[in-house]
Amino acid sequence: MEVYFDNSATTKPTEEVIEAVINGMREFYGNPSSLHKMGIKCDRELLSCREKLASLINCTKEEVYFTSGGSESNNMIIKGITKPGNHIIISNFEHPSVLSTCKELEEHGVKVTYLDVNSVGQIDIEQLEESICKDTVLVSIMHVNNEIGTIQDLERIGNLIKERSQRAKFHVDAVQSFGKFKIDVKKYKIDMLSVSAHKIHGPKGIGFCYIRKGLSLAPLISGGGQEKGFRSGTENLPSALGMVKAAEEISKNIESNFNKVTELKRYFIDKLQNIKDIKINSPLDNKISPYVLNVSFIGVRAEVLLHLLEEKDIYVSTGSACSSRHISTKGSHVLNAIGLTEKEITGAIRFSFSSFNTIEEVDYVIEVLRNSLTFLRRVKI
Amino acid sequence: MEVYFDNSATTKPTEEVIEAVINGMREFYGNPSSLHKMGIKCDRELLSCREKLASLINCTKEEVYFTSGGSESNNMIIKGITKPGNHIIISNFEHPSVLSTCKELEEHGVKVTYLDVNSVGQIDIEQLEESICKDTVLVSIMHVNNEIGTIQDLERIGNLIKERSQRAKFHVDAVQSFGKFKIDVKKYKIDMLSVSAHKIHGPKGIGFCYIRKGLSLAPLISGGGQEKGFRSGTENLPSALGMVKAAEEISKNIESNFNKVTELKRYFIDKLQNIKDIKINSPLDNKISPYVLNVSFIGVRAEVLLHLLEEKDIYVSTGSACSSRHISTKGSHVLNAIGLTEKEITGAIRFSFSSFNTIEEVDYVIEVLRNSLTFLRRVKI
Ligand SMILES: Cc1ncc(COP(=O)(O)O)c(C=O)c1O
Ligand SMILES: Cc1ncc(COP(=O)(O)O)c(C=O)c1O
Repeated sequence: MEVYFDNSATTKPTEEVIEAVINGMREFYGNPSSLHKMGIKCDRELLSCREKLASLINCTKEEVYFTSGGSESNNMIIKGITKPGNHIIISNFEHPSVLSTCKELEEHGVKVTYLDVNSVGQIDIEQLEESICKDTVLVSIMHVNNEIGTIQDLERIGNLIKERSQRAKFHVDAVQSFGKFKIDVKKYKIDMLSVSAHKIHGPKGIGFCYIRKGLSLAPLISGGGQEKGFRSGTENLPSALGMVKAAEEISKNIESNFNKVTELKRYFIDKLQNIKDIKINSPLDNKISPYVLNVSFIGVRAEVLLHLLEEKDIYVSTGSACSSRHISTKGSHVLNAIGLTEKEITGAIRFSFSSFNTIEEVDYVIEVLRNSLTFLRRVKI
Repeated sequence: MEVYFDNSATTKPTEEVIEAVINGMREFYGNPSSLHKMGIKCDRELLSCREKLASLINCTKEEVYFTSGGSESNNMIIKGITKPGNHIIISNFEHPSVLSTCKELEEHGVKVTYLDVNSVGQIDIEQLEESICKDTVLVSIMHVNNEIGTIQDLERIGNLIKERSQRAKFHVDAVQSFGKFKIDVKKYKIDMLSVSAHKIHGPKGIGFCYIRKGLSLAPLISGGGQEKGFRSGTENLPSALGMVKAAEEISKNIESNFNKVTELKRYFIDKLQNIKDIKINSPLDNKISPYVLNVSFIGVRAEVLLHLLEEKDIYVSTGSACSSRHISTKGSHVLNAIGLTEKEITGAIRFSFSSFNTIEEVDYVIEVLRNSLTFLRRVKI
């Protein structure tokens, strides 16, 4: 049995998505910026993609901009809106594409406040309130954390920002939540939002962002003036079609997927109770996404356990996975932020689910886990 | 008959390329940064893509970096290498993704020299020589121009730069030349190069750049640290596989494609001789790419002619096409740069070829052109 429990790192595109991309490559290969009817046909199709995505987050088609993915969306928005002397606020456990962008900006005269998070990863609303000042131009908070699944209370955060400042914009990294949780940018008072297709069974190399009408950003990629000048480069319509297919498919089933995955996680946690010396870092809780289950296996090195699992065709992650191979492994900044001990961090594995996973897969993983742990704890690797 | 003579704007992906992308989406959907064997398998495949691309331009696999396309590559390289106070040199008829990037940098304290080009679009080597100074960090010159097809003498330019400066790096926008002309980054002393897949029958939304070993760039997109920290974001392996397929296919046939397209252009120009009041802006000449034929139809508005052609299923461009719909139509900056009159610019159409075009298509286009021009010149639209 092959078990893919690494869906927060990336997902397998569905056959419907692959079909949509193929159709795009065959039928809509024209340049949407060309003046002739082939271009116009493609431009219309692109507009229809914008419309469909817009309807999923309650914005208008004019507010949807295509990018190459989550990292680009985050960089484009955060770098595009800040100038030297500005102040921005983020949490201390954002994705690296937000965190390292902010570190860079600090070197260019931008002030950054890093909000603490509590033991389940939620930001301190009072600290946020106190941090907003007249120079604050941006508050960037991720909706669902990629390592432990914490859900932030976007509505409360959005309201607070708008009460405290006329200037501060609210950006949400929704890469791990779009398609899994309902997002209403109006209700949550979100000004900008980042989404990536490959986390929802869509194609890689495509994403989009929502930028509220009236806001203006300096482009990250300038040139031909596509995407109303916010993002130049020949439009990637075939992948956009694949993304729309994935987004519609998953959004239609938000509730049933949520219920299915919740049951899976509940079952998994239940079975884990029989395993000694573990700590569940993302319990079943309405503040935590059921799509992520982060567990510390105390006394075990996560990489070693990961390799024993992969030998049995089980795919999981240690730490942040999106970038496991690149980031210097001083230990996950997320697990640090929620106050885990060194031992708990060293032994942390992330299981991340999709609606395609099954109870049988959990049974198999539990069995392999049990054997692996018995072995590891005996030989003390 | 449908005739696609807009191959400089974008190209139709071949079935082999589509197959490669499908296979990538099905078999290599894992995250190349994941530590498990699925990630490792994908990382290996990605490395093999780098290797294959590297061999086509005579660099090493460590010098190949994936991006989302030509515009991103150009922005990433030019913005990544310059700091306030630096000096850069470009020609005055670069692609907008180079030109507007430089305009932006000027606002941030970078000095830019815009080299003139002569009537066929070649830069003045002496002016280049005189322009290089101690602050010059970059000379960015496109290999083949997208509107009229001018080929620059890269070897001479590369040699000159290296003779005159130890500091100045040589960047080449090869978006219109890669796969159509042999490129040897060592021989031409190129330090950095930009390529886009959708111009060579590859997928949209993917490209690569070559960055010579030892050079360091500030990233445009920061985050997870992929592409050795130069370009973060989950790697788009399926599209990379499609790009490699396209690149290998076209590179294998550089010479025969070149000959075929040269014959096509020769035939086209021949037939055009019977049409009155035209000016060929990109004659058959070893300084001009056979893939582009730019013609001014004097006394005619190019957009009107374009629409008459599209009615007969013939697809061409006015001016720069990559961005026709977005750039304010003050008239093509390229045609301006080579000194055309206003009338010549107003009536300019770009026919751009691929090896899939045929002599029969030219015959059909000539016939439709003739009828359209007779009509237009009679009614004087
Ligand atoms: C929360 C979050 N933000 C941003 C990203 C970056 O998205 P992408 O890989 O599409 O660049 C990821 C995953 O990689 C993520 O989990
Ligand atoms: C010479 C040149 N450079 C750069 C680009 C931009 O490439 P892309 O559309 O892949 O961003 C183009 C075409 O659009 C081009 O013709």
